[in-house]
Amino acid sequence: MTPLAPAAPLPDLRRLCVHTITTKPWAIETAAARFAAAGVAGITVWRDTLAGRDVALTGRLLRDYGLAIVSLCRGGFFPGASAAERAKAIDDNRRAIAEAHALGAPLVVLVCGAVPGQPLAESRRQILDGIAAVLPECRAAGVKLAIEPLHPMYADSRSAVNTLAQANDLVEQLASPQVGVAVDVYHLWWDPALQSEIARCGRLGALLAYHVCDWRTPTVDLLNDRGLMGEGCIPLRQIRAWVEATGFQGWNEVEVFSTRLWATDQDDYLRKIVQAYRDHV
Amino acid sequence: MTPLAPAAPLPDLRRLCVHTITTKPWAIETAAARFAAAGVAGITVWRDTLAGRDVALTGRLLRDYGLAIVSLCRGGFFPGASAAERAKAIDDNRRAIAEAHALGAPLVVLVCGAVPGQPLAESRRQILDGIAAVLPECRAAGVKLAIEPLHPMYADSRSAVNTLAQANDLVEQLASPQVGVAVDVYHLWWDPALQSEIARCGRLGALLAYHVCDWRTPTVDLLNDRGLMGEGCIPLRQIRAWVEATGFQGWNEVEVFSTRLWATDQDDYLRKIVQAYRDHV
Repeated sequence: MTPLAPAAPLPDLRRLCVHTITTKPWAIETAAARFAAAGVAGITVWRDTLAGRDVALTGRLLRDYGLAIVSLCRGGFFPGASAAERAKAIDDNRRAIAEAHALGAPLVVLVCGAVPGQPLAESRRQILDGIAAVLPECRAAGVKLAIEPLHPMYADSRSAVNTLAQANDLVEQLASPQVGVAVDVYHLWWDPALQSEIARCGRLGALLAYHVCDWRTPTVDLLNDRGLMGEGCIPLRQIRAWVEATGFQGWNEVEVFSTRLWATDQDDYLRKIVQAYRDHV
Repeated sequence: MTPLAPAAPLPDLRRLCVHTITTKPWAIETAAARFAAAGVAGITVWRDTLAGRDVALTGRLLRDYGLAIVSLCRGGFFPGASAAERAKAIDDNRRAIAEAHALGAPLVVLVCGAVPGQPLAESRRQILDGIAAVLPECRAAGVKLAIEPLHPMYADSRSAVNTLAQANDLVEQLASPQVGVAVDVYHLWWDPALQSEIARCGRLGALLAYHVCDWRTPTVDLLNDRGLMGEGCIPLRQIRAWVEATGFQGWNEVEVFSTRLWATDQDDYLRKIVQAYRDHV
């Protein structure tokens, strides 16, 4: 691949989206108010924040704050040891698609799933079948699906799709305009094929979402020790240059799971998120 | 790739090697006595266990117990932010090669290294240069080097070589009979290209070592929560079938880092290792 210079700093916050999970202590109504006040332009909604709410009304609330609803997290978890479990997973994905439609989110992000001890190749077949099963609902609802390849450290129980090459392969096999990919730097930064697979994803017209955070040294928890951008070693502007070389001009979505940061004052943390976006994304 | 049936259980302990780090609480003299008494046939020596010992005498002690000395762990960590650091790393690798020669170990396993924040591509160049720099000492000592690709979760600070494909690429670039690969299931089990890259490693004549343990769900620590074989989800007999399809009939090396298992009675644990070897490797 031709080397590409790192991207320039982003000139403003118009492409900044924050995931509700990033400020997990906040209810969605609080997050919406604070994000809007801070100049954040987009929000990605995690399904747990919708519990007990009218989804359509919540969507209206978010739009009333001027927030773009970027995506709904998350569907997926298609593999199961029995046909009944797999059918249940497909039903849950149909509900996620309906929720996205009611919310007004154009995209559902998929954490594809895995069953410990089940061969990865079998889980991968079940993921393909599961996505294919819900494509009619996607078309009817006008909702797309983004396959998010997860870091190999989650291959046991969270996703049997662990590289961008695999996600691109799935996109090719499914050959549906409803299916694309979410590129998350946390999961993919280490991959020697990352630049070329981002380019391939672009050629497939499949690059639907771009998630940012950072990788801390040392990382003390496999799930909830992500860093805010600038706290780690991920070459964020290099990767964004690769992403934008495909023509992507969509959202830069801040998705940070961090027990450490959730324990801090969330208003202060949101200011740090905005600053880190300006300084490092 | 043609599917291969899983390997049959191993008929005896003649290919069982245990790493000294697996029973970390034991001094090397204790480990040697206990391994030999348990019927373990080979030992891989971690360098920390040699502190304060005469290395050649220790090698003789191990052989007197009837143990084969399989390899020395570990060299590597070639990348550095400055030329002085990289030169120091090369010196340390020369010492490791000399120790292996004095001990009577035919192989030094390399954890290749990485510098947080340094581009991975740069670390990979430094690894290539570092290995090339010590090849004369390898030839003179009759010691080989095994590049061990490490799990992508160690790409920040432990190794910029994270797939078997990358290790095979390095072997091809170095094109030296002194350089091969250590295949460790913990690092590589998730890789969709694992079967084909093991076959390629075999064609290169580069498969020098095979390490086993297991991946636990959940894994609670990135470094020291490996499972004993059978405690996790790695398809050990499937992977051994791929390894043996290359013609490999070498050691099955048990390398388990586990705070949990180090805290148990090590004699009892060694019995469990032998049983797990019979039941799961």
